[in-house]
Amino acid sequence: MTTAVAGKGLEGVVAANSGICWIDGEAGVLSYRGIDIHELAVNSTFEETTYLLWNGILPNQLALREFESHLALARSVDHRIIDMLRAFPHTATPMEVLRTAVSALSFYDADEKDNSHDANVRKSYNLTAQFAMIVAIYDRLRKGLEVVAPDRSLNHAANFLWMLNGVMPSEIAIKTMDMALVLHAEHELNASTFAARVIAATLADVHSAVTGAIGALKGPLHGGANEGVMRLLYAIDKAGADPVEYVKNMLAAKQKISGFGHRVYKTEDPRATHLRKMSEQLGKDAGVTKWFEMSRAIELYINADKKLNANVDFYSASTYATLGIDIDLYTPIFAISRIAGWTAHIIEQLDDNRLIRPRAEYIGPPYPAPYIPMEERG
Amino acid sequence: MTTAVAGKGLEGVVAANSGICWIDGEAGVLSYRGIDIHELAVNSTFEETTYLLWNGILPNQLALREFESHLALARSVDHRIIDMLRAFPHTATPMEVLRTAVSALSFYDADEKDNSHDANVRKSYNLTAQFAMIVAIYDRLRKGLEVVAPDRSLNHAANFLWMLNGVMPSEIAIKTMDMALVLHAEHELNASTFAARVIAATLADVHSAVTGAIGALKGPLHGGANEGVMRLLYAIDKAGADPVEYVKNMLAAKQKISGFGHRVYKTEDPRATHLRKMSEQLGKDAGVTKWFEMSRAIELYINADKKLNANVDFYSASTYATLGIDIDLYTPIFAISRIAGWTAHIIEQLDDNRLIRPRAEYIGPPYPAPYIPMEERG
Repeated sequence: MTTAVAGKGLEGVVAANSGICWIDGEAGVLSYRGIDIHELAVNSTFEETTYLLWNGILPNQLALREFESHLALARSVDHRIIDMLRAFPHTATPMEVLRTAVSALSFYDADEKDNSHDANVRKSYNLTAQFAMIVAIYDRLRKGLEVVAPDRSLNHAANFLWMLNGVMPSEIAIKTMDMALVLHAEHELNASTFAARVIAATLADVHSAVTGAIGALKGPLHGGANEGVMRLLYAIDKAGADPVEYVKNMLAAKQKISGFGHRVYKTEDPRATHLRKMSEQLGKDAGVTKWFEMSRAIELYINADKKLNANVDFYSASTYATLGIDIDLYTPIFAISRIAGWTAHIIEQLDDNRLIRPRAEYIGPPYPAPYIPMEERG
Repeated sequence: MTTAVAGKGLEGVVAANSGICWIDGEAGVLSYRGIDIHELAVNSTFEETTYLLWNGILPNQLALREFESHLALARSVDHRIIDMLRAFPHTATPMEVLRTAVSALSFYDADEKDNSHDANVRKSYNLTAQFAMIVAIYDRLRKGLEVVAPDRSLNHAANFLWMLNGVMPSEIAIKTMDMALVLHAEHELNASTFAARVIAATLADVHSAVTGAIGALKGPLHGGANEGVMRLLYAIDKAGADPVEYVKNMLAAKQKISGFGHRVYKTEDPRATHLRKMSEQLGKDAGVTKWFEMSRAIELYINADKKLNANVDFYSASTYATLGIDIDLYTPIFAISRIAGWTAHIIEQLDDNRLIRPRAEYIGPPYPAPYIPMEERG
């Protein structure tokens, strides 16, 4: 048996061929289908970006209109899923709820037993529309508010904010949410996307792969980090402390500061560049600049002292806080965006599939260890 | 950036150090914690095997009694989970239901927010007990039968059959189910276990990791294969066909025969040896030998003609059929067993964790691809 020993955590190991995302960690480059994220952040929308991720090219006017309309029409969640959400205890976190509800969505998906390319594209539309709805619906239910019906005349970002808050969002709120969704949509073989591909490669269904991905994103070493950033900012605010002093004390106590460093990027995470701007602009617009200012102070200190750069999670925290979004919805919003990339990867995996099945380096008792009879065991 | 290109599907790539399972695919050896599966199949029980997988050593008499008692006491599923199962449409497959119910179990687990070693051991007891209960409860509910309360005086295999059928199982049925659970409990970095480790490594919770693993096991290239074997046997029986002729025709039409070949074993899957014996013995005992005989005929033909060996799935099909178990419960029974291995791996991963994050070999449009303005798109 020939085995290649990989770095721990498969660091630097190529686990798949993919035409979806190109990252140059040394140069700080992120691109979807070859197009730089800086271009997409400024010029594109979540709908156009999702079209690009799924189809490999930018849509023309007609194709984009059709895509937007298709995605808006997919804003439908079976009433039995909503009944299920109503019955969930309000202590359940939105990520647990999203994981559970998405798993249950397969019961009502007409294509559940069809794992063909076309059926999986249909499921991808449904899931992309449904992720945002489920997060909004559950947040209202746990607050004792009534469910807001989707508005198919709104774009994806606006409809999410509408269903979440029950009031029409401002232009800047829509633009901010839309850009956040563009920036989080895809990131090559991150842990959740890789989990989705491992699951899909057994020829399990899309719902299984996506449910597993939600579970991975929940972890604080992955999507869960943006919640950690905001918890820190709230703690500093509550303590009335100086942000830099507070962080210095944390570091002295060997505590980890969320939102810095990245397995892939050795320079600034290019998504952080846009989220920093959004956070600042939004804060000025809302007259609440403290979250941005605290963030900036911490960033400059960690840059200088630890030579670590802010990652995508760092400024998404203050951005969402300024939008008035509850802290435990930050990772679900990451999922609302990343479903675009997950489904692109699942479909790509299935178009040229092979079971993903690595080996372990065995470090246990040497074989054959004896089966000691019960009466001789110590 | 140094990247090592791996074989497709990570074949032969070492993705983790693990002391749980040693496999020698060339020699046909499977061992848990160094102890040969042939010893465990004949001498051990599911409870003892699970203790071994979790603790690394065989229990003495007292430790085993405590473990059995602890596992029996964990036979408890929140009534709200049972209400949820009642509301599920009967068309939902048991694997979709298990995936969804296990995800929802985290709502009611007192340790949900505690990812410590000790809390995860407690969750492992609960999940191991609950997997068997959920499968049995849902099967009865979808058939319009009432839920059977667990019997804590029975061992794990017997309690599962009791809750499934509402009648006390025979000694041979208990022994057969117990041995099937021992044989399926662990298999190194198979796709579901690897998915569980990828998810756990983000520091997500045990329920997230296990939910993802269920999704992976559902796939026909993994756990789903035993259902494929039995569908074939039923189809041959219904057609009144000669099994070898039937399989020859399938192969001529380029159709895949489930239950043969294995990514790791180049010789006979050592688990098949025991399942073959169990299938034969059980058939003789029940006076229904046709499933074993058809299986054996197919196996001999595929051995000779295709040089492929039966794997764990091949004889588990006829074994479960002879026990009178519905075909779509075969993969859930695999899960009822494999939860022992999944939790062992999750805990091992977290005891020395690093995020599992490989890279992709980029094959898409060269960077930088232009962001073509809308009016210039074709």
